[in-house]
Order: sequence, then C-alpha cells, then structure tokens
Amino acid sequence: MTELSPNRNLNTNDWIIETWDPAGSAFALAGAEKLHEAQSPFQKVEVYRSDKWGNVMLIDGCYMVTSKDNFVYHEMMSHPALYSHANPKDVVIIGGGDCGTLREVLKHPGVESATQIDIDKEVTIAAEKYFPELCESNNDPRAKLMWIDGIKWMAEADDASADIIIIDSTDPVGPGEGLFTRPFYTECLRVLRDGGIIVQQSESPLLHLELIKDIRQAWRDVGFECDITEQFFLPSYPSGWWSASFACKGQNDWQAKRDCDVPTKYYNRGIHNGAFAQPQFLIDAFES
Amino acid sequence: MTELSPNRNLNTNDWIIETWDPAGSAFALAGAEKLHEAQSPFQKVEVYRSDKWGNVMLIDGCYMVTSKDNFVYHEMMSHPALYSHANPKDVVIIGGGDCGTLREVLKHPGVESATQIDIDKEVTIAAEKYFPELCESNNDPRAKLMWIDGIKWMAEADDASADIIIIDSTDPVGPGEGLFTRPFYTECLRVLRDGGIIVQQSESPLLHLELIKDIRQAWRDVGFECDITEQFFLPSYPSGWWSASFACKGQNDWQAKRDCDVPTKYYNRGIHNGAFAQPQFLIDAFES
Repeated sequence: MTELSPNRNLNTNDWIIETWDPAGSAFALAGAEKLHEAQSPFQKVEVYRSDKWGNVMLIDGCYMVTSKDNFVYHEMMSHPALYSHANPKDVVIIGGGDCGTLREVLKHPGVESATQIDIDKEVTIAAEKYFPELCESNNDPRAKLMWIDGIKWMAEADDASADIIIIDSTDPVGPGEGLFTRPFYTECLRVLRDGGIIVQQSESPLLHLELIKDIRQAWRDVGFECDITEQFFLPSYPSGWWSASFACKGQNDWQAKRDCDVPTKYYNRGIHNGAFAQPQFLIDAFES
Repeated sequence: MTELSPNRNLNTNDWIIETWDPAGSAFALAGAEKLHEAQSPFQKVEVYRSDKWGNVMLIDGCYMVTSKDNFVYHEMMSHPALYSHANPKDVVIIGGGDCGTLREVLKHPGVESATQIDIDKEVTIAAEKYFPELCESNNDPRAKLMWIDGIKWMAEADDASADIIIIDSTDPVGPGEGLFTRPFYTECLRVLRDGGIIVQQSESPLLHLELIKDIRQAWRDVGFECDITEQFFLPSYPSGWWSASFACKGQNDWQAKRDCDVPTKYYNRGIHNGAFAQPQFLIDAFES
C-alpha cells in the first residue's frame, strides 16, 4: 500500500502552486523546473515539469493543462457535444490553443472541418513543444488553425455554417471575457445550423454556480434552447470539480445519438448520460 | 465577475495544507486558526477554521471533513447503497465517526437501525463540537453509536443481521488498514442478509486504480457479486476525484429501486445512475 506522508511544511520553491483567492483554496504539484516562458500581448504562458503529473502549462499563473489529467477535459469538451448531434460535419473551436480539443474532434470520421481560432499563438507554440500528443492532428487536412480574435471571427462567419461551436476558453477575465457575453452568443446562434450545439467550459459547479446560471440565462435570452450543464473531474482546476454547459439551436434531449466509436480514456456512452445528470443543488438553483 | 488572483508565493503560515507525496500533489485552504487538537491512541485529530470552506477536520494531517464539501461524500456513501437495495432496514457503518453518513442513513424512514462503529471516539467528540450539523441524528432512537474495533465487532455480529454495510473509513494505512482485507470482507458477507450490499470508500480513480481493483478482486474472492465503482467529487481529498465501490450478496443491477424521497443537496435518481457510469479507463483496467 502506498504511504501517506502528510506534511504541513510546503516548500514553495519546489512546487507549482496556483492559489485561487476567491475560494480560498490552492492546488500544487511537486516539481517546479521551468521549461518555457513567453509573454504574449495577451497573457503569460509558462510550462513546468512536474514530478508526477508530467508537463504543466500555466496561463497568467493559472493551471491550464497537465499531461496527467487533460484527457478528461478534452474528451468532455468534445465528445458529449458531437454525440449529442445527429450528424456533425463542421466544428468550430474558439480558444483551445493547446489543440487537445481539436484532436478529439478530429477522431470523428464524419467531421469534415474543424476550425480552431485562438487569439494567442504562444499557447499553441508551447503545446507543440511540450504537449506534442495534443497536437498530433494539427496537420489533419480537415483542420484549420488560426490565431486571431474569435469574437471578430464569429461576427464575420457565414450564417448556418457550423454544427458545433466549442468555446474552450480561459476563465471569464482577460482575453476570455468577451466569450461570455450576449453579443457573442447571438453571433454563435446565427452561425450554427438548425440543431447546432454550443458548448462552453463553465467553471466549477461548487464555486461558480452563479456564472453557470448567467451563461445559461444569456443563452435563453438570445434564443438557444434546452440548456444543460455536464460535470466532470479536472483535478488541476480549482476544486477539481468542473463543468461545461450546452445549449441547442432547436430541441435536444442530450442523449448520445450513436455509440462511442472513437478511442477514449474517459468518455463512453454511459459517461455521456451520467455526466448530464444534474446534481440536486443545480436543479434547485434553476428553480429558485 | 470574480477576480482571479493567482499567486505563486503561498505563505504556509496562513494555509491548511495537505501534501500527498505519492501523487506529488497538494491541496490547501486559506485560514489556519487551530480550534481543536486531540491525540488519541490511534491518530491525531485536529480542527481548523478556514476562511471560505468553514471548519476543517484533519486526521494525521489528512483532510477528513470540511463544512463546504462534505455533503457530496456523505450523500454518496449512503443513498446510492440504500436506494440500490429493495428494502434496507438494518444498516451498519464501520468508521464514519464524524456521523455525517449516519445522518444521511437515518433520513430513510424505512431504516429501523443504524449502528455506527468507529474505533476512535475523539473523531465524534470533535464532530459534535465543530460539525454539529453532521451529528443532528445522533440521538435518533434508531441510532446506536459505539467506539470499538469494527473488525472485532463484525467478527462477533450475528449471521444475516444487516442489509447494508458502509465502510466509511480513513485511508488503508494505520487504523483503517484491516478494513481492506479478505478476512474482514468474509465476515461482512456472513453478516449481510441475502441481497445485502457492501460499500466502501475506495480512494481516487485517477490516483489509486490498483487499490480499487484490489478491493473488488478481494470481494469476488470471498463471494460477493456484481462489484462496481461509483465516482463523485470531493475537492478536499487528493485530486478531488473520489470513489466508493459496491458489491452485493447476490445479484444487483445498481439501478435506483425507488425515487429519492429524502432531502439532499447532491444526490437524486439521475445522479445515482450517473455516478455508476464507468469511465473507459476503469472498464479497460478490469478487462486487462
């Protein structure tokens, strides 16, 4: 049996630490060898080597990706949306510069195009070097990668040109902030075809319940239907308890429309339906 | 929108820190005013006041209970087992000295007896003072609280005298170690009635997959059937991704046999079925 070694004397020189002051919590991984640092016009991108979680990317000091746990995030940002749609062909990813969500989307043989628009090329540069496994589909002929403003891109995109829009952004401060607004959601609705799905990472149900309510209310206000929130595990994000929220241009029961036919580590049909189960406090929050 | 304030300079004097060396990870809550400390013959029990997660109980330096997130743990250690059983009347809790699982069990009007056997009365003393909400059913006439060795108690219990055995223990080191062994499980099987259910907290699927396999293999070896693992969120435990494993003395499909008819914050019928969804890597681990 592995030995538990609790120790209240955390040596901050040897740890990659994210403190999350609004919740009064912190998460840290042992090992703090800095492999990479780049300051873009938008944010600071750093990569560290941890002792037991592989490489770690931080953006402005917040955990973004670790080698150990990113599989849950990237699978749950992509497959539940794609399998909730009858026949997704054209997928747009806003953010997602580490390319992990793009890789998952391109596992689907029915997808004809996957367009990734991240404002910051430095994220992709760091991912290609330190998370090459996430970037292995970047040269797929169906992939198109751009490093421009996703809000501007969406405003200029053709009507009814996408089946799925995945908003795989940083938190709703800094460069990600505009991706949580009614004007942006209105453009997303216009760009989606009938039956199209929007999915957005929506922070922690335990810590950010009001944000989840705000996102879903904004979607209802601009004309999306059937909004719902899925839960999944993300140990390196505050509380380890994360969510993505979904809505549809039209009706959706959020059941998987097909069995899982792509290789995964976390997602499968049972997890699909299980992740959409709503905890009681979330149900209660929407009824109050 | 709440402000994110990442800060790599964690001041260890102001944080309640648990480092978990085998995984190279650490979790910390701001605020470290010590309210209570007791050294029992078995372990050190401490209670701190945190800034934003309420009171925090540590045992031998490991997070055991926080006011903010314990509801998920206690509900998921009790209701999935009770609702998976057709008609549970007699429930035994081994460990569970904070009394939170006992409270959830006693919400069920059909339960006629709930017997809690924790080896360490210091845990209950601390819970009664600093987590009174968890202890509000301790005086229920159906409750019987004992502070003795649960392994010895189980060996002396009558055949076929319980419907549910909940092993709500510390980690499988120190006082909890004997609760993860074949001789103990053999006694549990004997004490359960036909159709009876054993449920045990089984650590993190991400970090302790081999332990989960070991527990479930041991159950198969001694004669339990239909072993399965549920997942739930537990931010204050390593990785925030926790599990309980279940098996039956006989057949069980682990579907909820009744709608949820007790007040909860997390559990409901959808969550019941969702929590039993098996992530792909867990399925794969049992097929390898």
